[in-house]
Order: sequence, then C-alpha cells, then structure tokens
Amino acid sequence: MELKAPPSLRPDVLRIIPLGGIGEIGRNMTVFEINSQILVLDCGVLFPEETQPGVDLILPDLNYLEDKLDRVVGVVLTHGHEDHIGGVPYLLGMRKDLPILGSKLTLALAEAKLKEHRITPFTHTVKEGQVERLGPFELEFVAVNHSIPDSLAVIIRSSAGTVLATGDFKMDQLPLDGRLTDLRAFAKIGQEGLDLFMVDSTNADVPGFTPLERDIGPVIESVISKTPGKVVVASFSSHVHRVQQVLDAAHANRRRVVFVGRSMVRNMGIASELGYLRVPEGLIVDLNDIDELPDDRIVLMSTGSQGEPMAVLSRIANQDHRIVIGEGDTVLLASSLIPGNENAVYRVIDGLVRLGANVVHKGNAKVHVSGHAAAGELLYCYNILKPKNVFPIHGESRHLHANAKLAIQTGVPSEQVLVVQDGAVIDLAAGVAKVVGQVKCDMLYVDGKTVGKITDEDLKDRRILAAEGFISIFAVIDPKTGLVVEGPEIRARAYAEEDHVFDDILPEIQKALAAAAREGIRDTYTMQQVIRRTIGGWVAKAHRRKPMIIPIVVHSSRPA
Amino acid sequence: MELKAPPSLRPDVLRIIPLGGIGEIGRNMTVFEINSQILVLDCGVLFPEETQPGVDLILPDLNYLEDKLDRVVGVVLTHGHEDHIGGVPYLLGMRKDLPILGSKLTLALAEAKLKEHRITPFTHTVKEGQVERLGPFELEFVAVNHSIPDSLAVIIRSSAGTVLATGDFKMDQLPLDGRLTDLRAFAKIGQEGLDLFMVDSTNADVPGFTPLERDIGPVIESVISKTPGKVVVASFSSHVHRVQQVLDAAHANRRRVVFVGRSMVRNMGIASELGYLRVPEGLIVDLNDIDELPDDRIVLMSTGSQGEPMAVLSRIANQDHRIVIGEGDTVLLASSLIPGNENAVYRVIDGLVRLGANVVHKGNAKVHVSGHAAAGELLYCYNILKPKNVFPIHGESRHLHANAKLAIQTGVPSEQVLVVQDGAVIDLAAGVAKVVGQVKCDMLYVDGKTVGKITDEDLKDRRILAAEGFISIFAVIDPKTGLVVEGPEIRARAYAEEDHVFDDILPEIQKALAAAAREGIRDTYTMQQVIRRTIGGWVAKAHRRKPMIIPIVVHSSRPA
Repeated sequence: MELKAPPSLRPDVLRIIPLGGIGEIGRNMTVFEINSQILVLDCGVLFPEETQPGVDLILPDLNYLEDKLDRVVGVVLTHGHEDHIGGVPYLLGMRKDLPILGSKLTLALAEAKLKEHRITPFTHTVKEGQVERLGPFELEFVAVNHSIPDSLAVIIRSSAGTVLATGDFKMDQLPLDGRLTDLRAFAKIGQEGLDLFMVDSTNADVPGFTPLERDIGPVIESVISKTPGKVVVASFSSHVHRVQQVLDAAHANRRRVVFVGRSMVRNMGIASELGYLRVPEGLIVDLNDIDELPDDRIVLMSTGSQGEPMAVLSRIANQDHRIVIGEGDTVLLASSLIPGNENAVYRVIDGLVRLGANVVHKGNAKVHVSGHAAAGELLYCYNILKPKNVFPIHGESRHLHANAKLAIQTGVPSEQVLVVQDGAVIDLAAGVAKVVGQVKCDMLYVDGKTVGKITDEDLKDRRILAAEGFISIFAVIDPKTGLVVEGPEIRARAYAEEDHVFDDILPEIQKALAAAAREGIRDTYTMQQVIRRTIGGWVAKAHRRKPMIIPIVVHSSRPA
Repeated sequence: MELKAPPSLRPDVLRIIPLGGIGEIGRNMTVFEINSQILVLDCGVLFPEETQPGVDLILPDLNYLEDKLDRVVGVVLTHGHEDHIGGVPYLLGMRKDLPILGSKLTLALAEAKLKEHRITPFTHTVKEGQVERLGPFELEFVAVNHSIPDSLAVIIRSSAGTVLATGDFKMDQLPLDGRLTDLRAFAKIGQEGLDLFMVDSTNADVPGFTPLERDIGPVIESVISKTPGKVVVASFSSHVHRVQQVLDAAHANRRRVVFVGRSMVRNMGIASELGYLRVPEGLIVDLNDIDELPDDRIVLMSTGSQGEPMAVLSRIANQDHRIVIGEGDTVLLASSLIPGNENAVYRVIDGLVRLGANVVHKGNAKVHVSGHAAAGELLYCYNILKPKNVFPIHGESRHLHANAKLAIQTGVPSEQVLVVQDGAVIDLAAGVAKVVGQVKCDMLYVDGKTVGKITDEDLKDRRILAAEGFISIFAVIDPKTGLVVEGPEIRARAYAEEDHVFDDILPEIQKALAAAAREGIRDTYTMQQVIRRTIGGWVAKAHRRKPMIIPIVVHSSRPA
C-alpha cells in the first residue's frame, strides 16, 4: 500500500490526503487533488506533549507539498484556531503568493500571525453562501457554529464528486450571535447527493448534546456579583463569545474590564474592531489604570487557563505579575482542561488558593461547554446528509472509531466509512471513496528557528538525557602508539555527579585503553567503544543507571 | 520561624512534624515527639511527575530522622497503599530493628515489599479496638473504610493531649466487607475530648458523598455479561474489593479469571491467603491455561490502569504481550484517572480501540468510586468529634484549604485550623496546637541505587537537556602559552546536530581562545568561559536555542 502518490491526472478521480489531524487533535491539514491541481484545507499546529521536550510546535507534514507548490490553487481556512491556522506562516514560507481564503475573522487572525513572521499574504475574504472557483474546485461556504465566531464548513465540488468538510463545529441551537450551523444548507447538499462527508470527531465519544454556550452566562454573572474583591477570568484568547459573556456580566455589575496577556489583547482588539465583540462604551480600561479603581470594580480577562507557565495566570499564581491576588478575590477558569495540562493547571490553582483566592473551575462549577458536536448532534448530521462515504477527521483513534460507529448506526455501509492514519491516500471516484495508498507523513517539529531539523531520534536522545543525564569522556591518543597523551577527562551532568563518583572507574578506563593500544588498536572509533563498554558496565552495576555515554577520542595533532 | 527542632523534652508538649504528604498527595510521613521519644506514622512514597524526569520514587525527608533513630519507639502504618508504606524499606535501611505496627493485611503487604529489599522487619500486628503503649505514646486503633481492606485510624494519647489521625478513609455505609469507619469510636473520643484531628483532605473539595463501592458491581457485571469475547479489567493491584466484584461477576457469568501483572498476582495471593479476598473454587486459572478456554469464558484481571508503559495493559495495547485483544473483546478500566496520567491512559485506550476492542472507562461509564471521604462525610466527622484543633493532611493546597473551610464551618475557630507546609513544627500543649517553626523538608529522590544523590539542581539540568540538548567543546591548552594544542573538538546531542552545523562557529572559538591567550589568560576556568560565551551567543542568534553548553578545557600534560 506504500505509494509515492503521483499526481492525480484524471478528472474523474478526486484524491484526498490528510497530512495531519488524524490520530491526534491538532495540526489539521488536508490536501485535495484533481487534474494535477491541489487545494489545501487548513494548516494548523499541534502543541507538543511531555514526550516531545523542547519542541515549540508540530506542523503537518509540509514536505509532501515541497515539489508540488506550483500546483496549489489555494489554501482554505475554516476558522481561526491555532490547530487550523498556526502552520500557515510555515506554508507561506515555502511559497509566499499562495492565495488564502477564509472568513473575515479567520483571515484577520491569520494575518496578525503572519505579520509576526513578516509575511503579507494574498487573501480573499469569503462568507457563508458564497461560491468560489479555484481551478478544478468549486467551493461553497456554509456557516457553522463553533467556539470561535465566523467558522465555515466548505462544500468542495469537482468533476469527481462532492465533499463536505465540516471544519470544527457544533450545533448550539441558541448561539450568542444567532449564527447557527446551517442545516438547511446541509439538507440541500444531502438532497443533491453528498459523495464524502469529512466530519469533526472530537466529541463523537461524548453521548448526547453539547450544552448551550449561553448557559454559562448566569454562572459567570453569579461569580462576578458575589465576589467582594477582584475577579480574574481566564479563558482561551480566541473565545470571543465566552469573553462577551464576561464583558456583559462585568457591565451589569458596574465593573470595568482589563484585557491581560498578549494574545488576549490582540485578539479582542481584532474581534471588537471587526464587530464580533460588542464592547459597551468605557467598559475597557488599561492595566495601568486599575490602581485607581476599587477591587470590587475590576474584572481582569486573562490568558493562561491551561496552566501555561509564561502566561498571565501562572505568573499571578507565582506572584510574578503586577496583578496581586488575595483574600476576597475570585479566579474563574472558564475553560476546558486539555488532557496533559492537568498538573500544570492544578499547580496554578493551588498557588492561587494559597494566596487566599476563591478559585472556580470546571471541577467545581459549570463554567465551560465544548466547541464540538457530541454524538447526538452528529447523528442529526448523518441523517440530514445521508452521505455515500464518511471520513471521520480531527480526533484520536477513540474519537474516530466512535464517529465511524455513529455513521454506521445511521445506515452508512461500514466499508464506506474510512478510519485511516495520517498520510492515507483516499481516492473518490464514481461515488466510492477508497484508500489506495499511504504517503510518508511525519511530525514536522519547529524548535527555535529550525523547522524539521529536530528528528524523532533527537527526541529519543532528549528523553534519555532527561531521565538519566550523561557522562562524557574525552581522551587524546597518539595515532602511532595508540597511547593516551591527554586525558581521559570525565564530565557528567544530571547524573548525581559528586566530586569523587568517577574515581573508581578512571583507572579502569586507562587500563582498558592501554590494553586496546597493546592489541594494536589505533582508530578513534574503536577506542570510543572501549570507553563506552567500560564505563557503561560499571555504571549499570554500581548505580543501576543508564546515562547517555559520550566518549570522544581524537588523534593527537602533535604525535610524540 | 526557622527552627532546628531540638528534641521536645517536656512531657506537656507533643511535637508533630509532617515530613511529606502536605501540599502534595503521596510520601506520607508524620513524626510525633514527646519527652525525646519519637513515633513515626506511615512512611510512603510519591511518584514523580514529568518535571522530575528519571526519578524512580520520592521519599519523605528521612534525613530529619538520621541523628534521631535511637529515639524512635516505633513506626505505625495505617494501611497498605504505596503512598503510606512505600518508603518503609528506606527507613528500615537506616535502622533495621525499628518496630513496625499495623493491621494484618497492611503488614503482609509491607513485608512483601521489604522482602524484595531483603529486609526482615520486626512487626507487631494490631487490629481495631486494640490499645498499645510505645514509650510515652498510648495508641488505640480504630477501623476505617478505604479503597484497601484493613485500614486503621489511630488515636495517639500522650501526657500533652490526644490526637486522632484518620489515615486515608471514607465512610461507605454499605461496605463490601461490612467494616465501617467506626463512628462510635469517633463519638467516644469526641466525648473524651479530642485535642487534635489530623484528617485526610483528598476529597475535601468534592461536594457531597462518595458513592458506594457496591454500586459499581452491576456495571462490571453488565460489561462482563454483554461481551462476546474476552474481558480485560484493569484496576489498582491493591483494590481488593474492586477485584472481589470482578471475581463475583466473572463467577456469575461462568467465566474463569486470570490475574496478570506482577503486583496483581502478588497482592491477590496475599489477600486471598489472609481471607480478604473470597475466591470461588476453581475460578482462578493460570495465564498459560487460557489458550484452552473459549474467549467468552475468560476475564483477565490486570495492572496498568494508569497507562504505566511497562504494565500489562500498555503492553497489550502495543501488541507486546501474549494476551491478544481484538474485535468482540472489552477492556474495562475500573479505576480513577490520576492527574498527570491522562495522556498515557488515552494512548493506551486509543491503542486498544485501534485493535477493535470496546473500551469502558471512567469517561463513559460509572466504573470507579474514590477511596476518600468527600466534603459531606468530613462534616459528619467534625460534628461527631468536635475537635479543639484541626490539622488537614494528605492533599495539595486546594484540598487542605477546602478541608480547613469545612472545619471552620462546623465551628472550629479558624486560628485552631492549621494549614501548613511540609516540615512545619506543630506543638500541642494545654489543648492548643501552634506552629512554632519549620524544619528543612526536601524531596528525597530515589534514582537507581542512589537515594538523595539526585538534587533539584540535577533535575533542572535534566529539564534543560530534555528541552534543548547540549553542546560540548573540548580543548587542551598549553599552560605556559595558553595556546590550544589539541582540539577544539565539538560534539552535540539532541540539538538538531547535522554534520556541518558547527562549521561556522569553530573558527570563531579558535579566534576567541587565541585572543584570550594573547591577553595573558592561562587558567582553564576562564578559557571555558570564553568558549561558553562565544558559542552561546552564536547559538542564540543563529538558531534561537539555549542548549546546555559544556566547555572542557584542560592543561596539556606535555607542554611544548
């Protein structure tokens, strides 16, 4: 099934390859290809977990596109979340003039990000109902409801069939902005005949329905009205509707609001400028002005709800921020708890509690609803659309399988439900979607200025270094005699290194090297192996440890 | 407030020092001292989190006891969980003949652990209602209900007052073994006058009451009866009552049970031998015999419910175990999800789902109840006991503060509720408990054979190595001229090291060293600083990275 994925040259075959977002939640990107023309849908980042230390971001496997950039007709962004737009600067770094399509808010957020990378993109704003043609692709945009405004699903029509890609979505029936997921459009496309449904799986394993965003409002209102001191609300910096509810509650309680945290300030600036956030006159004040306000007139709207160590909330908890929290103040974490962040978040909560604050969070109050459709909502979609083929995306294996099960329960034949890995090559032709191969699809790591230089091998080294530390042994040998002329010199780090810990083994290394020289060994590689064996065996026995051992033997530049 | 904590010599002062278990959940140990005699209550371990890479275990700060071992009259263990007994081998490593008191099951589990360390302890079995005298301490044991059988609270009476330490407990009113937390004994001690209540805080921030353990039985039963293939149940290997419910359900469904995983096999052997686990005749079979049984006659009771990479369940998910799971099989994780383990557990679940298994867990079914008293239960305790002073233990800050709040709500004056840090020195005299100082109380790290050798400084190094890798630069200089005679030689690991990545900087280092030599610098320390500055500046600028930089400059042993 390994396949180099040659261009799909035929007008009756639409090729679809996910290059991220399958088997993980994040770094979403899918490429569509027909008649050798390519459409890119989303280009997001994945945030590293603890097994990927030091990595800043993980990109979809952009390498796939490297020799195909001239064939890309455009990039469509469904919404403005990092896991869908975060990789765009790296994609545009490969070809700056790629046309980017998206809704007004999505493009504004993407442009702000690109500005930081000093890239001015070619953009084209679209909205729901609009139809665009990009090469062989006809795109129709459909309003969907999500945890960021102005999200779009996209219908991709081609000579080989029709695809509906939901992007991220849910079906809040009383959304704050009145913008529903457009089930009428879903019904129309269902009527017309949908060949492939690419559908968000994030909450497919959650039974029932995602609660209404507006149900959180009264909780926020109650927290703010009952707090005698300051209120700090932390949430996602792109969650405009959550912030709206905080602003409304603050306003109703005659409090002023301060945005704190770089991304919060930036995003809410964009959202209010474009009209997505309604800000009552005089409500917002600057952080520098809060000293003049009594505590019970202040709401701080901040970042850091996931315990990010450098974000505002962590710094407040560590008393490393000009905002000082204490008895009488309340901190509200109006957010989910993304798996893997628990320890970090609880550390922040503990810090705030120690300072005397009352902390309200998902664990003790109803202060968050998800942005993704739960099982009950997905069933509605399947029944309205009646798709011929289903491709669950955006989820880990358990979510994809749960979503597949829902599709099958509504009558989609199980062989027409494609649960695949990243890099799967799916061909859609004559109403049938089939996996026809697999292309290489690796994690592409960003670390500092490097993209794709850090490999999985490096990460393995990092994990060993983290768990065990290292011991480095340097020696200079005479290339003629093989005898040590300088060293051996031992250094260790992160290895319980005490002054005399290596006193026992140094003479052993000297002996082993001398013996090797007597046996006629002169090359540095073998001498390094001699050192590695000698110290490795000793360390395992004496300390029951397995540090990284790095012997460095060089030939002397000035033989005796 | 810093205090060396000299022995408490007076018979009217009882000194209490927690040396672990406060501000964290784990490594529980408290010392009691009166008239220079010391009692140790519990000695557990804490398991490391991701910020403590490579650490095997974390002990309470046993260093405090180092020069006081001759004054210890005994060690009391409240129950057999690792966070209460796991440190005993290290404590006995300091003084082998310390008398250990505990219930039958607790001592059996401690002895099995000590056997692995080749220590045969001096033990004394106690049970509820029993009174023992150890030097100046009169101990009375009280039955409590927890997620392991045979748990005890202990009343510590002394000439300076009376303490009730709950150990870990909850108040299941219909426990499987009928052994209730003895509220009659609590009432009696309340009547008599309780000076200090040391109380489990784990669930103090959970409103209401912990549900009944027996409510899980029907769920387990339903999963087993509905599964067409094999059932694997993963749970804690000490949770005898949970295992009992699995055995009963398997038996009712005419399935055989196999214990898998070293600790599961060992603990259930002990529990059934001592009569805590009732095993129907012929129910248990050996793993080697399951090939002869049809899948629908098998229940595998295994370890690994927390996603531990070396435990049975992870290995099954990775297809690295002789138990093969697939379509038609069900895996039931009948356990909590300990914060910090989420990613590991979800990785295991995803692996099992990919293999086709149905996975039932806390996220989608009612398959776990906690072993700790929730807020509602704690209120009962406070009201029955009416303690003069309260000392919330066993919890992170948010739990301790929540517990303190409950105490205060029942009428304990807030100044008599002591929320402290590990190492706090609490003196109880004339019915008043007061914090009188603070002793050093560090994390004591076990790594391989070393105890307390790995420091926080080492862990900081490990985190840097993990995030950034390292660059090592070796050079030999002539001590007379300062000129480089061998090297510089550069090696890097976990740093996106490509063959030519350091080509640009090597000449810069040579130039900087030559310049230093011209300035008269001869000492190796300063030369190392020159290298560090040169390469550090370059790396930050060229790659925007901060690896660990380890320059090693030595004087030549054979000057020119």
